[in-house]
Amino acid sequence: MSFKVPRGTQDILPEQTPKWQKVESIMRELCRVYRYKEIRTPIFEQTELFQRGVGDTTDIVQKEMYTFEDRGGRSLTLRPEGTASAVRSFVEHKMFGLPDQPIKLSYVGPMFRYERQQAGRYRQFVQFGVEAIGSADPAIDAEVISLAMDIYQSVGLKDLKLVINSLGDKETRDSHRTALINHFKPSIEEFCSDCQKRLEKNPLRILDCKIDHEHPLMESAPALTEYLTEASAQYFAEVKKYLEILGIEYVVDPNLVRGLDYYNHTAFEIMSTSKGFGAITTLCGGGRYNGLVEDIGGPDVPGIGFAMSIERLLLALEAEGVELDVEDGLDVYVIAMGEAAKQKAVELLSSFRTKGISADMDYIDRKMKAQMKSADRLGAKYVIVIGDTELEESAVNVKEMESGNQEKVAFHDLVNYLQK
Amino acid sequence: MSFKVPRGTQDILPEQTPKWQKVESIMRELCRVYRYKEIRTPIFEQTELFQRGVGDTTDIVQKEMYTFEDRGGRSLTLRPEGTASAVRSFVEHKMFGLPDQPIKLSYVGPMFRYERQQAGRYRQFVQFGVEAIGSADPAIDAEVISLAMDIYQSVGLKDLKLVINSLGDKETRDSHRTALINHFKPSIEEFCSDCQKRLEKNPLRILDCKIDHEHPLMESAPALTEYLTEASAQYFAEVKKYLEILGIEYVVDPNLVRGLDYYNHTAFEIMSTSKGFGAITTLCGGGRYNGLVEDIGGPDVPGIGFAMSIERLLLALEAEGVELDVEDGLDVYVIAMGEAAKQKAVELLSSFRTKGISADMDYIDRKMKAQMKSADRLGAKYVIVIGDTELEESAVNVKEMESGNQEKVAFHDLVNYLQK
Repeated sequence: MSFKVPRGTQDILPEQTPKWQKVESIMRELCRVYRYKEIRTPIFEQTELFQRGVGDTTDIVQKEMYTFEDRGGRSLTLRPEGTASAVRSFVEHKMFGLPDQPIKLSYVGPMFRYERQQAGRYRQFVQFGVEAIGSADPAIDAEVISLAMDIYQSVGLKDLKLVINSLGDKETRDSHRTALINHFKPSIEEFCSDCQKRLEKNPLRILDCKIDHEHPLMESAPALTEYLTEASAQYFAEVKKYLEILGIEYVVDPNLVRGLDYYNHTAFEIMSTSKGFGAITTLCGGGRYNGLVEDIGGPDVPGIGFAMSIERLLLALEAEGVELDVEDGLDVYVIAMGEAAKQKAVELLSSFRTKGISADMDYIDRKMKAQMKSADRLGAKYVIVIGDTELEESAVNVKEMESGNQEKVAFHDLVNYLQK
Repeated sequence: MSFKVPRGTQDILPEQTPKWQKVESIMRELCRVYRYKEIRTPIFEQTELFQRGVGDTTDIVQKEMYTFEDRGGRSLTLRPEGTASAVRSFVEHKMFGLPDQPIKLSYVGPMFRYERQQAGRYRQFVQFGVEAIGSADPAIDAEVISLAMDIYQSVGLKDLKLVINSLGDKETRDSHRTALINHFKPSIEEFCSDCQKRLEKNPLRILDCKIDHEHPLMESAPALTEYLTEASAQYFAEVKKYLEILGIEYVVDPNLVRGLDYYNHTAFEIMSTSKGFGAITTLCGGGRYNGLVEDIGGPDVPGIGFAMSIERLLLALEAEGVELDVEDGLDVYVIAMGEAAKQKAVELLSSFRTKGISADMDYIDRKMKAQMKSADRLGAKYVIVIGDTELEESAVNVKEMESGNQEKVAFHDLVNYLQK
């Protein structure tokens, strides 16, 4: 019997995790300076939360959820995204009543979508995201976008494009919806069965269709921007103004609608323009979701957020040939010759580690030469060899691997010596 | 419609996450100095992996797993523990063939067990654990135990008790098994139905029974230690010797058997002896699992590891009244009076954050007094108020909140001023 990682998932192996840790620590640090506090919600939620919070007509809810019953007969779903859970927690814990609004949250963790397998797409993937709930100030839309851009720039990405759009308010969307229905209805038989269902339920989704995207009616479809109310247009203008103050370049794309039902006003995506990058160029997507908190049982409180996949961020780094600066080497490797020396080695190792010096030794009884090679492969900065002589003298030669220099150091001085 | 966190799970809220982050960073740092590299395996695995790797007769596999079919009809299970997944990955990626054995791994993440609800027990809980696979040296058993103790001591726990035992080798367990069967068989009708099933399948499990634990035959049951082979006894003596070299106190408890099927030789638990702690006193459990790698389809390679719950660690900190040292305050809060000042505030915020200075402002149009209160509640070290005068003078009073001192600083000097 041999076991494999489940289809569509991956192990992140010891040689890859330092990169992940580095990226996450950059995210944590930026969340600190922007004051987006981490929240951790469970891996699964009641299924209905996502039906309500992500939207019944979305591909995610219709086709891609990992839904199951627990032993108590409750329908649970592995979270396909992070916003619905964050908003559920915001409502359940009555964060709307806390004195310092907006509530600024961040999260990082695995999400699950049962998608067709293709390069760069996993059924379990890791998203980092933020939510600012409780403010309808265009300046916070700019702040959220700025945080996303800062993350990419801090890891070293350069080939970035920020695309923004406004999806307007409810009035905007209602008139646009009517216009879309009028536009598609006469020829709806030419569209796929999903699109036919979308026509009445959520005609905006037709524009996202992966099957009919080349139908001529797509390009001539009425653009949402034409239906923006004055207040929406004004809001959008302010967001753009703040982006300019922040020195963040952007492109307005009236076709940007995002794959989730809950967005309104500001919608944005950050893409990689690197030539080495694959077909899926979106690194990050986000937008404003006024109304979602109410849909999930809370008061009428506005919100905005984004989510980004760490897998894609790492792919973009690769595409641009950016190497993250990760510290991965060992400080000291201790080689012991004989039983008494081994006991001393165990003792020394412990004294090193207590002081933050990374240290290791052999645990499979190899010859000295093999241990030397191991020290070398592990990137040890120093090597110490303990034998009978060293035990007698209570001192040992410390070899600096890069220069080959050796220096004799008393056992009790080793920690000090290695720390400098 | 109002949504709640699924039964038996919890949200870790923004005011709690700094503690989690602190504990995890201590774990990461100790893994670095001990050279246990992080591995990340998927949240779910093929169900059979746990049947095989955790053991068919265990409570976990029999009663507590979240098992479901994906849309492709595969039986998947949310991981109830971390060792089976780590070993699966070790085998699948042929880590046994890498030059530097043993492979030392660490992991941290959510695990899932459908358990009866009680204080301190969650259906989703977070485990940190390590595995050292590829060495049968008693010194590495001591290393693994030492790492666990170091974590607890580094977070500040003092009321700790290390309990160890040896479960011996296959020969030990076979003769002990026969002795157990002979001991219980004549009176097995007096035991629960689970125990009756356990008698032939895995009589060792009877000693763990939560129902029959007061039956007189329990105390008089033959102890495993009486059946230790000479080689096993020798191995155990060496483990104890290395613990002594490391200055780690321990108690030998012949009744310690651990709840998982795969352990042999060294088994250990670390308990909290704090009076404030609840009924469940085990913080960490681990042991040697020679044979498991082979069971999961790999070569005959020995291994040892442990797992600890972060929830329990935090409860133990609470019980002992230990406060973790978490940095959670804001460096500067910027108050803007008027539209032009707000634009300047957005610009300043960005310049601060770029330099690692945590900064925030108001996004809900509050009066100055309310903003001042907010700055105070957020623990801001400095407050800056920008109005028309400040814009004219291109300078602003920086107020140090603790002392109340103010100093006038030019806009372009602010970053320098705040950084020192």
